[in-house]
Amino acid sequence: MSEKVQPIAYGMIGGGQTGYIGKVHRTSAELFGRFKLRAGIFSSDPEISLASALELGVVPERNYASLEAMASQEKARPDGIKAVIITTPNHLHGQAIKIFSQAGFHVICDKPLTASLEEALEVKKIVDCSPQLFMVTYCYTGYPMVREAKALIANGTIGNVRMIKVEYPQGHLATAVENTGNKKFQWRVDPKRSGEGGTVADIGTHAFHMLRYVSGLRVTSVSAQLNSFVETRQLDDNAVVNLKLENGGIGLIWVSQVAIGHDNSLNFKVYGDRGSLEWTHRNPSNLWLMRLNQPNKLITRGSPEATPQSKRVTHLPAGHPEGYHEAFANLYLEAATFIEELASGQSNCSEVDYPGITDGVEGMKFVNAAIQSSQDNGRWFELN
Amino acid sequence: MSEKVQPIAYGMIGGGQTGYIGKVHRTSAELFGRFKLRAGIFSSDPEISLASALELGVVPERNYASLEAMASQEKARPDGIKAVIITTPNHLHGQAIKIFSQAGFHVICDKPLTASLEEALEVKKIVDCSPQLFMVTYCYTGYPMVREAKALIANGTIGNVRMIKVEYPQGHLATAVENTGNKKFQWRVDPKRSGEGGTVADIGTHAFHMLRYVSGLRVTSVSAQLNSFVETRQLDDNAVVNLKLENGGIGLIWVSQVAIGHDNSLNFKVYGDRGSLEWTHRNPSNLWLMRLNQPNKLITRGSPEATPQSKRVTHLPAGHPEGYHEAFANLYLEAATFIEELASGQSNCSEVDYPGITDGVEGMKFVNAAIQSSQDNGRWFELN
Amino acid sequence: MSEKVQPIAYGMIGGGQTGYIGKVHRTSAELFGRFKLRAGIFSSDPEISLASALELGVVPERNYASLEAMASQEKARPDGIKAVIITTPNHLHGQAIKIFSQAGFHVICDKPLTASLEEALEVKKIVDCSPQLFMVTYCYTGYPMVREAKALIANGTIGNVRMIKVEYPQGHLATAVENTGNKKFQWRVDPKRSGEGGTVADIGTHAFHMLRYVSGLRVTSVSAQLNSFVETRQLDDNAVVNLKLENGGIGLIWVSQVAIGHDNSLNFKVYGDRGSLEWTHRNPSNLWLMRLNQPNKLITRGSPEATPQSKRVTHLPAGHPEGYHEAFANLYLEAATFIEELASGQSNCSEVDYPGITDGVEGMKFVNAAIQSSQDNGRWFELN
Amino acid sequence: MSEKVQPIAYGMIGGGQTGYIGKVHRTSAELFGRFKLRAGIFSSDPEISLASALELGVVPERNYASLEAMASQEKARPDGIKAVIITTPNHLHGQAIKIFSQAGFHVICDKPLTASLEEALEVKKIVDCSPQLFMVTYCYTGYPMVREAKALIANGTIGNVRMIKVEYPQGHLATAVENTGNKKFQWRVDPKRSGEGGTVADIGTHAFHMLRYVSGLRVTSVSAQLNSFVETRQLDDNAVVNLKLENGGIGLIWVSQVAIGHDNSLNFKVYGDRGSLEWTHRNPSNLWLMRLNQPNKLITRGSPEATPQSKRVTHLPAGHPEGYHEAFANLYLEAATFIEELASGQSNCSEVDYPGITDGVEGMKFVNAAIQSSQDNGRWFELN
Repeated sequence: MSEKVQPIAYGMIGGGQTGYIGKVHRTSAELFGRFKLRAGIFSSDPEISLASALELGVVPERNYASLEAMASQEKARPDGIKAVIITTPNHLHGQAIKIFSQAGFHVICDKPLTASLEEALEVKKIVDCSPQLFMVTYCYTGYPMVREAKALIANGTIGNVRMIKVEYPQGHLATAVENTGNKKFQWRVDPKRSGEGGTVADIGTHAFHMLRYVSGLRVTSVSAQLNSFVETRQLDDNAVVNLKLENGGIGLIWVSQVAIGHDNSLNFKVYGDRGSLEWTHRNPSNLWLMRLNQPNKLITRGSPEATPQSKRVTHLPAGHPEGYHEAFANLYLEAATFIEELASGQSNCSEVDYPGITDGVEGMKFVNAAIQSSQDNGRWFELN
Repeated sequence: MSEKVQPIAYGMIGGGQTGYIGKVHRTSAELFGRFKLRAGIFSSDPEISLASALELGVVPERNYASLEAMASQEKARPDGIKAVIITTPNHLHGQAIKIFSQAGFHVICDKPLTASLEEALEVKKIVDCSPQLFMVTYCYTGYPMVREAKALIANGTIGNVRMIKVEYPQGHLATAVENTGNKKFQWRVDPKRSGEGGTVADIGTHAFHMLRYVSGLRVTSVSAQLNSFVETRQLDDNAVVNLKLENGGIGLIWVSQVAIGHDNSLNFKVYGDRGSLEWTHRNPSNLWLMRLNQPNKLITRGSPEATPQSKRVTHLPAGHPEGYHEAFANLYLEAATFIEELASGQSNCSEVDYPGITDGVEGMKFVNAAIQSSQDNGRWFELN
Repeated sequence: MSEKVQPIAYGMIGGGQTGYIGKVHRTSAELFGRFKLRAGIFSSDPEISLASALELGVVPERNYASLEAMASQEKARPDGIKAVIITTPNHLHGQAIKIFSQAGFHVICDKPLTASLEEALEVKKIVDCSPQLFMVTYCYTGYPMVREAKALIANGTIGNVRMIKVEYPQGHLATAVENTGNKKFQWRVDPKRSGEGGTVADIGTHAFHMLRYVSGLRVTSVSAQLNSFVETRQLDDNAVVNLKLENGGIGLIWVSQVAIGHDNSLNFKVYGDRGSLEWTHRNPSNLWLMRLNQPNKLITRGSPEATPQSKRVTHLPAGHPEGYHEAFANLYLEAATFIEELASGQSNCSEVDYPGITDGVEGMKFVNAAIQSSQDNGRWFELN
Repeated sequence: MSEKVQPIAYGMIGGGQTGYIGKVHRTSAELFGRFKLRAGIFSSDPEISLASALELGVVPERNYASLEAMASQEKARPDGIKAVIITTPNHLHGQAIKIFSQAGFHVICDKPLTASLEEALEVKKIVDCSPQLFMVTYCYTGYPMVREAKALIANGTIGNVRMIKVEYPQGHLATAVENTGNKKFQWRVDPKRSGEGGTVADIGTHAFHMLRYVSGLRVTSVSAQLNSFVETRQLDDNAVVNLKLENGGIGLIWVSQVAIGHDNSLNFKVYGDRGSLEWTHRNPSNLWLMRLNQPNKLITRGSPEATPQSKRVTHLPAGHPEGYHEAFANLYLEAATFIEELASGQSNCSEVDYPGITDGVEGMKFVNAAIQSSQDNGRWFELN
């Protein structure tokens, strides 16, 4: 008779009362009861941090003033946290990762990994020394039908991949909203806090990882065209990136935050020599499968014919919509499984599927190469 | 500075290791941290009940053997539960409601309210005597765009309602699955446990409530045609019901569990004298608004132009899909607000919007009238 | 070496400068060169008729003043017309059919057949005496994917039909447009010219024929609810009709001309015991096929896997949209084939598929029964 | 009282019994009675040409053996043709255009204009000397909702264009079908008959013209990546082309004939600083209009709010699908109007909207630049 496994205690860096992504992390991490918030530094403003802690049920003594204090004191507590979730602006990711990774915590960090490739490579050196979990939350790979697509490509259903297109259009930066005093948008268009990349980093890394994840193919080089369509904007708000794949195939990424009419219309289309696949975030429970001389088929989440890989991360029967929370939660479920297996000395993690430090670094290499290519009028840049 | 409100302790009747709806209730109730499971009778089989309790983190002493024991012992505990969630087969709802309502607990019960109208009326008498919350979980009214539709009708956007169609096709009973030993399906097609109504009760009550909820109109009479298309089946598996509305308009409900290709394709269309609305569960974040001589418009959850009524129950920014868990959770959020306001002596519940005992009884009247009408070759039956 | 077959000369009754349906008939009849307009009475107003004739390239002497004159004089000409197309208001169909049918012409008439069932039965007696073609233009059965659906049902792909739903919502009569001086709408809501049925006749006959055509099943009885939602309107503008099918299955028809947001959203869904089919006029080249435990499939016009029955009436490669003209033209192609085979003494008309006098009379029986049923509060009326 | 205008007599070069595009031209040209076939050279094989002529109702004496004979003899006839439609393989376009243009005929030619840019420029010199019509059939600009998009951009509805994406995926060359003896595919992948460009010429010219037509913006330079994914293929079967627009905006074209699951899925999306537009050939009567902080709107062909520019080329009421034939016919209607106005000495051709010689040459410049850019690893090539 199995007893309930105790949830993994975690702390947060960032994710206070302003902004929405911190709440998404908490809701998703705790959705299926595998994590429980116990500590944190919720804001760089001490008052906001304390207020957030109280609201979130964190006792005041575990609302910390510095990363170092949090790491050392939580380490010392018998009921100390085991994991840290980092949801600060990008330029603060690196330091937090280093401190908590070196101190032996499991670390989960929002994307992009850091504000620069240089920092990403430094971070990787430290993370590589730790046996603990490191996860970067490219959350869209948690959707069951994204997993379905990956599985169908891996099992040869559409043959050799010739081309993969990934688009991620959003429209919220179509005007100069950063000049209207809206804090939510300011740090994302500020190179000091966001890094060199604007849209290409913020959502381009999602698109790039999606391409890599679904196809399983390495990208050898990129040619990019970045634009800042809003005149006063310092960072790019639209990017078109051509990619060459290791197998001779090609990729095409378009990401935009000035595409009016779109909220989070991430989508991909993969064309192989035996068939094709199409998925869009607008209907995340559907996957189109198209094969030579056959009617196009709509595979739905939870349907009998779905692969084990998508069924494994499906929670509700077919026809009951799941969404962003469940997709995000799936990454946290993978993380929890990894952490628990590690703790118990088990090592059969073969099935655990989450984006790690290498994926985080790759994302930054992509951003870096895209920026350089664009500055050099679209010249092809090798990715490695 | 607001501190975290402690979650409301609750117990469950039913919802053990078999079946999925118990898990949906728990996940949804706890999704935003407002409820916490502490006790229960999870199965009529004591071994399964205990195993479920342990798995769910309920201490063995609070896994009870009878409704009465649970009610009295929890009442006696200083940390006793305040609310009960009932997710048993339909024929067991009534007794559980009565015992816990009389004992002063808040009661939340799955639909349909009971297995017969007679029992529903009895239950109502008891529930009416209690100041505590009673909620029946017609969960689909928790979708933000269903609320949007209700708000747009209420504010006159589409004028006077002429016709409202609600459909709920499912396909999982298209063959005699109940004869294959699959427990999941058996009680639903067994009159002893489900009641007189099959599909008309199981999902017809959802459709009827949706019609009532969205239009805000009373139904005066019904004419129904129930079929059992699978020969060996005792209960209906398909129902067409015509309805007359208090304002001279008409309704049309079609529910089916033999509609191959459909999982939970609940949808409604409302036609007014100035415009129309269309919603489908397949894309729950979209609502079509069509007005005379204007382009059809797609209103999306979380968009700037949405009404306060839908924004109030929206958790993620536009473009991040929400689903069944969030819709279900919205009912639990309403319930939590009601319970907390009641506890604090506040009475400004004007905004709280959840289905109560009257809605539960109305559903049973609908089932009862539909069955009688069908047996009488579709003769019109007054609803009241 | 095959020489071009000369087109069949035809005349028109109605279809002058006002109204659009006459033009659709001409364009469709002549789309593939099988018919050629040579004579007519294009309007009851002689001036309009002459003007229309001239515009259409009909010589003035073949613009006639009466049905009788047209019949006798065209009969007498060596180059006289062989066929007549009738597109007048409904109350004038009967007389024209009788005169031209008795005079030995092929007759093609718009739907509904007549303004009353009585007249339809009279007309049938006369038409039955003629070996010539009689076609009533239920044009939507000319769509290739409607033919595909019929073929798939006939070959057992979805098993025994349990339920078939046909809807035809339009919105152009949502307000009292007939009171605004718009001639286009007036005759359709005038019982003297349209007949007893409003929407139930105008588009209800289309829906009923679609149900019959696709399913191949006879309707045994109907229970109807007709409404006139626009207060000043004498005829129905919305109809819900329940139907019993000869095989124990059921039908459900909803037609409306007050459904704001819809233009010609004819659609059907057929549920069998092994699968389902869905078609909508909004995407007429698509047909959804749904089978037990298989992914839903989208069959497209002209695709390799389509049946011969739909390929036979497909003109453009897959992916090049066809529309209403081609669907309508397909009926005329069937008619031309019948006429040519009859003329040549060939009788292998097995493949010719068009709606004839029986279909026209059935439509009127449907209208008649629906009206009676509605007047008797939805009592079931036998159709035969 | 207006009499019927006599149709314009035309001849065809190509378009015999094999291939489908010749038939599309004839059907579309004659759809509304403005053109009539009277002469031609329907095939390079004299027997096929004669057989085709007979089948098409062309008298044998007007089935010619050479372009020169056809031009001189038709010129000499009192009832001679006024216009020529050229639908041969690409490498034969140039000579035919020159001969008939110099001889004073109106010339209508399929796309791409020629097999090489060099030849296109030569042809232009000759065509520029003729006052007669020259049209190249970029047929997709005949769709009403494409015209609607152009009109909305021209009137500022979506503001300044930042980006325009045009895609044209097809799948019929996904395998080496040209090696299976299927004549239909052979010439298109044969550089001798098709020219240097494969897919980039065959459908890339459609996509490029669509971008130009809808946006009204000039393209200053292109960077292209052409692939031949089928190994044995000499010409490209997939092309990604980045474009710079004169106003600082960018373009992105993707065309493919190896995209399994697609037939003719031409589509475009235009992003301006005030709104966006989306159109797809799969639903050609719909146009999405998305504006800042407004619900997305679906504009439909024939709807009251459509612009005069789309209404002008709309033939059927909203909700009755039009398709490829009508779109193609709209170009022929424009051509007929031009020809008739020219003949009558009228010059108010302001509204006539069809693609001419400049558009044809531009298409070839695009193909040429794309090929050169691709050979030079995607280097940017100026278009002029």
